[in-house]
Amino acid sequence: MAIDFTKRFFFSPLTDGGGKFLDENFLLQNKTAQRLYHEHAASMPIIDYHNHLPPVQLTNGFQFENITQAWLYGDHYKWRAMRTNGVAEKYCTGDASDLEKFEQWAATVPYTLRNPLYHWTHLELRRYFDINSLLNVQSAHTIYQESSSKLQEPEFSPRGLLEKMNVKLICTTDDPIDSLEHHQTIKKDQWGIKVLPAFRPDKAMKVDSAAEFNAYVNQLEKVANSTITGYDSYLDALKKRHDYFASMGASVSDHGLEQIYAEDYTEKEIKSIFEKIRSGKELNHNEILQFKSAMLVVFAEWDWERGWVQQYHLGALRNVNERRMNQLGPDTGWDSIGDFSQARSLAKFLNRLDKDDKLTKTIIYNLNPADNEVMATLAGNFNDGSVAGKVQWGSAWWFLDQKDGMTDQMNVLSNMGMLSRFVGMLTDSRSFLSYPRHEYFRRILCNLFGTEIENGELPSDFKWIAKVIEDICYNNARDYFNWKNVIEPSPAGVKQ
Amino acid sequence: MAIDFTKRFFFSPLTDGGGKFLDENFLLQNKTAQRLYHEHAASMPIIDYHNHLPPVQLTNGFQFENITQAWLYGDHYKWRAMRTNGVAEKYCTGDASDLEKFEQWAATVPYTLRNPLYHWTHLELRRYFDINSLLNVQSAHTIYQESSSKLQEPEFSPRGLLEKMNVKLICTTDDPIDSLEHHQTIKKDQWGIKVLPAFRPDKAMKVDSAAEFNAYVNQLEKVANSTITGYDSYLDALKKRHDYFASMGASVSDHGLEQIYAEDYTEKEIKSIFEKIRSGKELNHNEILQFKSAMLVVFAEWDWERGWVQQYHLGALRNVNERRMNQLGPDTGWDSIGDFSQARSLAKFLNRLDKDDKLTKTIIYNLNPADNEVMATLAGNFNDGSVAGKVQWGSAWWFLDQKDGMTDQMNVLSNMGMLSRFVGMLTDSRSFLSYPRHEYFRRILCNLFGTEIENGELPSDFKWIAKVIEDICYNNARDYFNWKNVIEPSPAGVKQ
Amino acid sequence: MAIDFTKRFFFSPLTDGGGKFLDENFLLQNKTAQRLYHEHAASMPIIDYHNHLPPVQLTNGFQFENITQAWLYGDHYKWRAMRTNGVAEKYCTGDASDLEKFEQWAATVPYTLRNPLYHWTHLELRRYFDINSLLNVQSAHTIYQESSSKLQEPEFSPRGLLEKMNVKLICTTDDPIDSLEHHQTIKKDQWGIKVLPAFRPDKAMKVDSAAEFNAYVNQLEKVANSTITGYDSYLDALKKRHDYFASMGASVSDHGLEQIYAEDYTEKEIKSIFEKIRSGKELNHNEILQFKSAMLVVFAEWDWERGWVQQYHLGALRNVNERRMNQLGPDTGWDSIGDFSQARSLAKFLNRLDKDDKLTKTIIYNLNPADNEVMATLAGNFNDGSVAGKVQWGSAWWFLDQKDGMTDQMNVLSNMGMLSRFVGMLTDSRSFLSYPRHEYFRRILCNLFGTEIENGELPSDFKWIAKVIEDICYNNARDYFNWKNVIEPSPAGVKQ
Repeated sequence: MAIDFTKRFFFSPLTDGGGKFLDENFLLQNKTAQRLYHEHAASMPIIDYHNHLPPVQLTNGFQFENITQAWLYGDHYKWRAMRTNGVAEKYCTGDASDLEKFEQWAATVPYTLRNPLYHWTHLELRRYFDINSLLNVQSAHTIYQESSSKLQEPEFSPRGLLEKMNVKLICTTDDPIDSLEHHQTIKKDQWGIKVLPAFRPDKAMKVDSAAEFNAYVNQLEKVANSTITGYDSYLDALKKRHDYFASMGASVSDHGLEQIYAEDYTEKEIKSIFEKIRSGKELNHNEILQFKSAMLVVFAEWDWERGWVQQYHLGALRNVNERRMNQLGPDTGWDSIGDFSQARSLAKFLNRLDKDDKLTKTIIYNLNPADNEVMATLAGNFNDGSVAGKVQWGSAWWFLDQKDGMTDQMNVLSNMGMLSRFVGMLTDSRSFLSYPRHEYFRRILCNLFGTEIENGELPSDFKWIAKVIEDICYNNARDYFNWKNVIEPSPAGVKQ
Repeated sequence: MAIDFTKRFFFSPLTDGGGKFLDENFLLQNKTAQRLYHEHAASMPIIDYHNHLPPVQLTNGFQFENITQAWLYGDHYKWRAMRTNGVAEKYCTGDASDLEKFEQWAATVPYTLRNPLYHWTHLELRRYFDINSLLNVQSAHTIYQESSSKLQEPEFSPRGLLEKMNVKLICTTDDPIDSLEHHQTIKKDQWGIKVLPAFRPDKAMKVDSAAEFNAYVNQLEKVANSTITGYDSYLDALKKRHDYFASMGASVSDHGLEQIYAEDYTEKEIKSIFEKIRSGKELNHNEILQFKSAMLVVFAEWDWERGWVQQYHLGALRNVNERRMNQLGPDTGWDSIGDFSQARSLAKFLNRLDKDDKLTKTIIYNLNPADNEVMATLAGNFNDGSVAGKVQWGSAWWFLDQKDGMTDQMNVLSNMGMLSRFVGMLTDSRSFLSYPRHEYFRRILCNLFGTEIENGELPSDFKWIAKVIEDICYNNARDYFNWKNVIEPSPAGVKQ
Repeated sequence: MAIDFTKRFFFSPLTDGGGKFLDENFLLQNKTAQRLYHEHAASMPIIDYHNHLPPVQLTNGFQFENITQAWLYGDHYKWRAMRTNGVAEKYCTGDASDLEKFEQWAATVPYTLRNPLYHWTHLELRRYFDINSLLNVQSAHTIYQESSSKLQEPEFSPRGLLEKMNVKLICTTDDPIDSLEHHQTIKKDQWGIKVLPAFRPDKAMKVDSAAEFNAYVNQLEKVANSTITGYDSYLDALKKRHDYFASMGASVSDHGLEQIYAEDYTEKEIKSIFEKIRSGKELNHNEILQFKSAMLVVFAEWDWERGWVQQYHLGALRNVNERRMNQLGPDTGWDSIGDFSQARSLAKFLNRLDKDDKLTKTIIYNLNPADNEVMATLAGNFNDGSVAGKVQWGSAWWFLDQKDGMTDQMNVLSNMGMLSRFVGMLTDSRSFLSYPRHEYFRRILCNLFGTEIENGELPSDFKWIAKVIEDICYNNARDYFNWKNVIEPSPAGVKQ
């Protein structure tokens, strides 16, 4: 190893010497919370309605060679922790061996105490691999061998990992120009867990660079088998992809944006902006904003026409480290939380759709928790009684996906919205080993309710509260996304 | 009912089966907190220095026909919850019968668990009507009958409801062009509870639409019996109303704004802006901001001349749902929390007044809790030793008027200001049934102090802390607003 | 006294009647927390790497005459509390006697309950003076006499006060044009506690007023013994001061800014801006921003060349009360928390340095806690594995330097960064009596860890956690700032 961590953390523990760490009542601080979790939440299936799992890894027969491939390839959470701990890039995304990378991660783990990574790491070792010792430099080799060897068994294929977690359905995140070939393969298999694509057209509105956008449009032409001569035919080609996604079972879209764009524009302006960029000229700032504003409305109307659920992930400040971005590309751990204004433009956009009665079911996620109350209350402005929980403020996301972030989200949602109608947790993860985050969420959820029952802030009607818990864990998402028939196909034996 | 809620919440409880829900020590989690509340806070009278109660309903003999009229007419909190729960507008603000509306509300109540509505609802049923069962579809009819029948008794008139709650004084919220006729009627009655008007001139500076503003000015001409020929005579007419409000006992003003306007302007510019809009032309953005900036200073100087207390409610993003706004008008539940910049313009405005030594006592309320620390510390910049607690950061408002919001406000105020000088709670409500919110506030307050005494963060001097509690509940407001003589008129028997 | 406080707070307690106030387990709510603090944190030395102590008071033989001089002169926290409590300026910064000032402060103290001042005040009386009674009007005279008399003893000189607190090293805050004469005197004494200057060039980039800036440049010419004929020679003169600070042991710089300035500029533009202001002309807004943006990069590159640590204090809205600012000058208690945008410009600035690989170790402090998550995650974008904990999100600052503020900072840092690499607490204070704030911080820190060990959120490996605690208290700062050789000079007996 390049850095001799052992010297410093020579005594970091191998086991939790007699303590309660991660025991069965982890995060459940009273009897009622424990009962709610063990008797109700724990056994509910999982609907993971938004994640970034690579579909190819879900095709039949795919198998990881070792724990580094399954755990460290592509996990920018872990890379950030390692870098902050002084680990060189070589061991994160570089050409070190898989074992070396794992050693460096293992040496970093004790330094992550109080970070969600510390909990996730040990929950994942326990729930998937039945490994109960703590990860550090001393245990690194043993754990590497044991977990890697298991991963080579069919039971520990990506499919096996999902089955182990009682997952019923997942939505991946896919570009309109994606062929969805792996989704097709998976569909043909008639595998028990549903794997649906989700429509994420970020690049189709990314007109910040003429070269990049035109390259995208050219690819789209091929994939959609269309000739794109102007804005109208551009939309036609995109709509073909939207239709194709629908034919593949998609009913969810997603957008990753700093903030909602809601400039004023005319159809004519947008057409001429499109022609300008297609001629190779760069757009000015205002034209970029206008184009993005127009595209957001187009996509939203398509989603509304089909009754899809649209999702907006707002507030990330991405790729701020140019040196690393150039070396490693996006999504490698150089993003942070922005402080953009959100309220006015988001309100304007939702109103633009709502006033024509074209607002479909919508979930809004914010990355900056300073926006929590804005989001929780803004959603309420467009809940018009047509659908229960129509506009949702989404689960704590990315940096907020930890105990404090989830607790804050659920408390603010309770105070300013309606927790009982919440569609609950999703992983948003690139890793098949992230599913214990649902368990983590459910324990926190049960603890909130259990505590309030015990201290008299909620009535002590266990049956009623248990139903609410089960709804938030599973039933609400199933009903909101209209997936009852998709995941509970046989009417016999289905609890109503 | 249009929606069959019973199916889903078939087992929602009718009573709190043996639990502690809302029992006498509700929210009081230790013995010291319980003593502070029961021996001190509970019996303090109420000064509700800001609310939106309709004065007409306080005239002698006014009586509600049923609980829907008293509870659901005009309560946008409940409407939002119902809409989020999938209840059609017909049952919120529409033409459904009062019983049908109540049924839908009752069916929604169990879904509001963890929202302040759930606590408020049951506290109100208990404190006013002595109804201890939980509200849901099963109990709806019984509770409707029992509460409605009581509301027809004189003891349950709006006046009776306030008397039951030990209220000493309330301030309503009134437009300068309001005739205050009902205040006059109430005044003549010499009713034991003081009902004072408060001056809220929002429309007098709302120059966003020429038509609306000119209609307002025309009405003002009539009410003030003035001829408005220009800016000077406009101010004269408004000042007549300010004087009239003062003659009616007012000593409080209030402003509801997205943010404080503090543009630079000259008297000449404002005069010409006024002439422009009076000629029917729309103002541009900058003119609007200048005019509003000027008016805020004018009103503040009038308040300072009379020694009034001025209040600013900052940060609401209002009427964002155009479709519903057009159908139902403002204040019907389509507002949310904005993320406006607050610090610089508020500082500039207060400084503008302070540098001429014309800053009167001031209370600032923020709707976005992300601004809490800005508000708490900004107030401190203008506390110059002339009056204890001169510039106050006001109580948690609207969406923040719940346990977490109040707790955060009191903790930040403690950390960055002076909790002991806090003028405390107000309802800001449109409903006569909202007064248990004072109880709610007091329980939270006592719990904060009790907990810190018990864990050694405060000295265990009960007498001293009890005095601080009583001050925050009642004495501070009485002294800050100079209402001692108004509400404790007889010198004999008044505790000093 | 001008105001008769005694009447109101006649019964404020003299002692904590049998309670646990400030006892040995103050803020330590479980056995594990108590052990962590008493067995590990309490005995760690103090490195106070940023404060505003006046170097002259650290020269040998300096002695305060009384407690008012040591405690109330220069303490704007206390002044703000007094003013908010209705105490006239005369008793804060005015010409009242030292005893009178103390009386007014004593009368205010009971009103500060739940403010950090209440804890600080009594911790300081106990830790330095062994005075255990509570401060109020009744105890004021006794405490004044006892503490003042002690302060006249050599053991209670400023040097003695630091020695009593086990301080190893402090960094003051100094302008480039400061002669550092007192630092020289102190250095010659070879006093056991290291007193290092820190480079704070705020005025060297403050081009908001031509007159002020030119006066500054003229002073710099003299101090640096340079002729400043243009931008290049201006930088040369400043660089001489930077070198001089380094020769005096400095290895830390500091900047106090509303937000980071990161405009685009060319060298040529900056030169011409410099010439413009030197000719006596005022700069426009854009020129001011460009000049500040350029200077920040210059200073940062000098710090990088020398391997210094650079600090940025962001987000204060200063001197908003013009009337008082004109009377009393800056830093007298008229500042508050701003709501500036921080993320984008800070990211741009750090990236500007990083892309040329010229980013030195950096600590960023925010004043608005709404920016906590932005700061915590932004730091992570520039932790590239080269140095452990290279970019730090600094300790809770100023208004945030209290239990809730520190707890939030440590929780967010834990969730989104790496608490184990945190360089920990600093006083940022103008007072020699502020060192119990380190104790306060450590108690809070130990309580966080102890609680999580006891409830199973951390493994119960006491030895490991104790090491992390010791690191955050002392070792991390020692290593991060490379001060091992400065403060632990003798290799014998040094624990590794």
